[in-house]
Amino acid sequence: MRILVLMIGVLMLFSFVPPAPALNDGRIELPPPQTDGGMPLMQALKERQSRRAFSDRELSLQTLSDLLWAAAGVNRPDTGGRTAPTAMNKQEIDIYVALKDGLFLYDAKNNLLVSVLSQDVRAMTGEQSFVKDAPVDLIFVADHQKMEGMTGEQKDFYGATDTGFISENVYLFCASAGLATVVRGWFNKLTLTKTMKLRPSQTIVLAQTVGYPRNE
Amino acid sequence: MRILVLMIGVLMLFSFVPPAPALNDGRIELPPPQTDGGMPLMQALKERQSRRAFSDRELSLQTLSDLLWAAAGVNRPDTGGRTAPTAMNKQEIDIYVALKDGLFLYDAKNNLLVSVLSQDVRAMTGEQSFVKDAPVDLIFVADHQKMEGMTGEQKDFYGATDTGFISENVYLFCASAGLATVVRGWFNKLTLTKTMKLRPSQTIVLAQTVGYPRNE
Repeated sequence: MRILVLMIGVLMLFSFVPPAPALNDGRIELPPPQTDGGMPLMQALKERQSRRAFSDRELSLQTLSDLLWAAAGVNRPDTGGRTAPTAMNKQEIDIYVALKDGLFLYDAKNNLLVSVLSQDVRAMTGEQSFVKDAPVDLIFVADHQKMEGMTGEQKDFYGATDTGFISENVYLFCASAGLATVVRGWFNKLTLTKTMKLRPSQTIVLAQTVGYPRNE
Repeated sequence: MRILVLMIGVLMLFSFVPPAPALNDGRIELPPPQTDGGMPLMQALKERQSRRAFSDRELSLQTLSDLLWAAAGVNRPDTGGRTAPTAMNKQEIDIYVALKDGLFLYDAKNNLLVSVLSQDVRAMTGEQSFVKDAPVDLIFVADHQKMEGMTGEQKDFYGATDTGFISENVYLFCASAGLATVVRGWFNKLTLTKTMKLRPSQTIVLAQTVGYPRNE
């Protein structure tokens, strides 16, 4: 009897373990981002730098959530405002997250990762050897369909500036959290575009590698 | 005798007062930036927003120094590294500072403002009424001459991304320091280019208004 109670206890314990992050429909629920704390801003600015040596240690889901919120999360739920500005508030930059387990789209509003591909595309975001060592490559993609009223030239221009805002947030978050990062523009965007199965209105702007620094 | 010593002492005291900021040759020495402190990063990200109502209260020279250092100051004196990255480390973005007293160029390495024009060009950086109320308009200018080895298209692209990095630093500094700011791209760049007497290799990318929020 005592063993039975113990077994039921153990079963109940397991049933109360937090739910596995993967939802049935290929979405991963991110833990709520920690929107307080971090390094004092001026110190984070002092520590900001590009680093190109990564360990393969993975980021926890909490760190990934914090990273993505810092990058372009919703910081004003009442208006849908984000941590980074966009021209005319078009919010046209999507962040794709390339992990070992596949490619995901960051859904800032719902704090989710939406599965896009089960393929590991990290190595396709850059030819440098460190790209495939690091656990995370962010791919910033401008959706020109969201930029109504702009010329083609303006879409390219603001897609670039608006990615810069987000990428700098990633740099400062990494400085604050002891992570290494480097933003990159030199890679085969055409091949990656095809692999990612992007729509014709979507343009890859930059990629940014994130991970723990090697030898630390 | 005692009075004489006292007078000499007083004279010596005055001679050790820090020099007036304006140098003879049209340069203004900025006080060393405060590179510690500020709001915790995640809180600064939570506070980040575009604000378009400014008081005409001027920024102290210390605040201006801190702002410019945060934007694109030298954070690694040994390598000349900056608080914001640039493609291939070209460091091609110059920050011009439009104040009531004239237009200045930020010399990050020497922590100086170099006088460019004695004219108040703030109103020329945007047609919105708030632009002329605010004490500071930053004008981000890409110098294509510093971007050797890039195509014209790449120069435009990286000039835009690299300005985004800097501008986001300004946003976060303003959030941390209780300042209002908004970045802007819609103004007559041709007219401003002529007024600023820019070289043919220089291209205005964006402008960003900074000041104290109105009614605060």
